[in-house]
Amino acid sequence: MDSISESTIDQSRLQRYLGYRLTRTEIHIHKLFAQRVAGFDLKPSEFSILVLLDSNPGIYLRQLGEALDISPSNLVPVVERLVQRGLIQRQPDPRDRRLQQLHLTPEGRALQGLAEGEVARLEDELEQLLSPAERAHLLVALDKLTAVPPGQ
Amino acid sequence: MDSISESTIDQSRLQRYLGYRLTRTEIHIHKLFAQRVAGFDLKPSEFSILVLLDSNPGIYLRQLGEALDISPSNLVPVVERLVQRGLIQRQPDPRDRRLQQLHLTPEGRALQGLAEGEVARLEDELEQLLSPAERAHLLVALDKLTAVPPGQ
Repeated sequence: MDSISESTIDQSRLQRYLGYRLTRTEIHIHKLFAQRVAGFDLKPSEFSILVLLDSNPGIYLRQLGEALDISPSNLVPVVERLVQRGLIQRQPDPRDRRLQQLHLTPEGRALQGLAEGEVARLEDELEQLLSPAERAHLLVALDKLTAVPPGQ
Repeated sequence: MDSISESTIDQSRLQRYLGYRLTRTEIHIHKLFAQRVAGFDLKPSEFSILVLLDSNPGIYLRQLGEALDISPSNLVPVVERLVQRGLIQRQPDPRDRRLQQLHLTPEGRALQGLAEGEVARLEDELEQLLSPAERAHLLVALDKLTAVPPGQ
């Protein structure tokens, strides 16, 4: 089995597909990102939650899920873990006490700041791989591709 | 809760990150792709397996996992399901009967052809969103980003 390396596998048909290429690059970058935030005992989704809470204090769980494209049933245990770690807290909405608003704790804000610094360093490394024009074109192309509505 | 829409959520800090933008676009395109192959009762990973088996008859499970970045423990049940559906078959390697080689069945090849036609239509739709130059630049940028080794 060892005598046949991955390089002998013909992936040319999948490589033709933009969607496949995008997925492979995303998997690769996601691994790099996950390694960096793992140093703070955070998963990528947890990092994103902390950043969104820092920018949007008092956000509702549902809004957080919509922003991150995570279903409430998947999001609830993630939020619960961050609450247990003392990084975020839930407070009843003063306008409707059945609803809970999410906030960073001081500890959560501190960890978020450290993790965001590390992510910014990774971003710098990625940016060095592309010229400013390449980066700008890439972002335009990504935005255009995101314009296709699902369910067409 | 309904009165506050997703558009009021400040995502600007995450949007700055290339990795985040890439992930969001990938999630979007992956959904479109998943919808198309679901019409053939295939998940995206199953579609990729059928295409790779069509191009690489007799491939080993480990090679398939390496090509798709799926661990053997995650890949085994997926392959098993495709075997149960009569789409692929396992044959002992004549050079080492402890190893199993994977092949498409005639039914698997037929389904793969139909699904690949549908995926090609989605690709055409995506390509219409980009100029040929934009598409070429996008693929170059994706390849450059994939050049960072993990664990740096």
